[in-house]
Amino acid sequence: MNLSDTNINRGDRAVCVFSGGIDSTTLLYHLLDRGVETAAISFDYGQRHKKELEYAARTCAKLNVDHKIVDISSVQGLIGKNALTDPSVAVPAGHYEADTMKATVVPNRNMIFLAIGGGWAVAEKVDLLAVAVHSGDHAIYPDCRPEFIDAFGEALRAGNDHQVFVYAPFVNMSKGEIVTEGARLGVDFTQTWSCYEGAEKPCGVCGTCVERQEALDSLA
Amino acid sequence: MNLSDTNINRGDRAVCVFSGGIDSTTLLYHLLDRGVETAAISFDYGQRHKKELEYAARTCAKLNVDHKIVDISSVQGLIGKNALTDPSVAVPAGHYEADTMKATVVPNRNMIFLAIGGGWAVAEKVDLLAVAVHSGDHAIYPDCRPEFIDAFGEALRAGNDHQVFVYAPFVNMSKGEIVTEGARLGVDFTQTWSCYEGAEKPCGVCGTCVERQEALDSLA
Repeated sequence: MNLSDTNINRGDRAVCVFSGGIDSTTLLYHLLDRGVETAAISFDYGQRHKKELEYAARTCAKLNVDHKIVDISSVQGLIGKNALTDPSVAVPAGHYEADTMKATVVPNRNMIFLAIGGGWAVAEKVDLLAVAVHSGDHAIYPDCRPEFIDAFGEALRAGNDHQVFVYAPFVNMSKGEIVTEGARLGVDFTQTWSCYEGAEKPCGVCGTCVERQEALDSLA
Repeated sequence: MNLSDTNINRGDRAVCVFSGGIDSTTLLYHLLDRGVETAAISFDYGQRHKKELEYAARTCAKLNVDHKIVDISSVQGLIGKNALTDPSVAVPAGHYEADTMKATVVPNRNMIFLAIGGGWAVAEKVDLLAVAVHSGDHAIYPDCRPEFIDAFGEALRAGNDHQVFVYAPFVNMSKGEIVTEGARLGVDFTQTWSCYEGAEKPCGVCGTCVERQEALDSLA
């Protein structure tokens, strides 16, 4: 059992897994808008688009949110044979539904992020562990599906005396719906980073660039 | 659903979470004895008894087991207000059942270890993720209880296309039963490290020293 949007209250405390992209930036605004006292956690896991961490840090500074960047780059040698962390593997172009996009799956990535974020949440005795997974990710990323989020929440509570609930309000929303919510909340999307390539400018052709542009176009 | 001892087969492949202590060293011997091709993973999480990692490395070298030590010491700032990772918190003496022993709980530690070990297991497409939790740990460490191990296994499989099963054959055994199994398998207990203090010699009074000595005495 995880919490839906209706179950959070002003004054709740949360740890938010935060990449600096559109989805988690909108989630951070959403939590603050609802009066949830939120701290953010980001990860250096050896991703080639480490640039996202600068965007994450700037957003947290702007919003006056406590922000930790945790260095777990040593996992790259274990789970790193994929397009996001291995420069020798090409970042595929196209939509998330494409089979080629499987090259961007980092094994167990969300569980690792949520396990460490969950440890912090338990240590600080907060109420919620927030994560911005959404329905557009379901096809290719099993660790973004509701079954995983629910099972993870059960494990987190079984493994700790202090009970933290996973808050994933976007889990059945599309990216288009997320940007609509973000726009309503005043998110400046130019201050978020998505591109998997991590070059100076977004490449415009990788899966996350394509999905991002389509979502933003749907706003117009 | 996790696997009991009867469900493993010669030729299976496993990743074993390995601290270098009595329990996980016995588990490593147990897996190799049953013909399971095993790699071991240890963690530097900022523990004051980092010495255990030297014991872990020596045992793996002796057994010709592939061994990774993963540096996640940056989590210490998040989950580190406890006796195992904060030198300003005294290591309590006595048995695990004692309430004072709660100072040695590191929030969500086993989930973090299992999440990273699970990522490696999925990346390498092995069959099993082995962990040496046992019944003596249940009173004080929620992340050593069967409910947690089962829930974690469900989450690991929900979050990944490749299905890995958690193998925790000692989960309902006492430490006395583990050392009996270890002795049968020829484990040299002098080549394992338990003490939470991590000084030159074991302190002899912390929880893990007391439990270790009682278990070894039960062999006599």
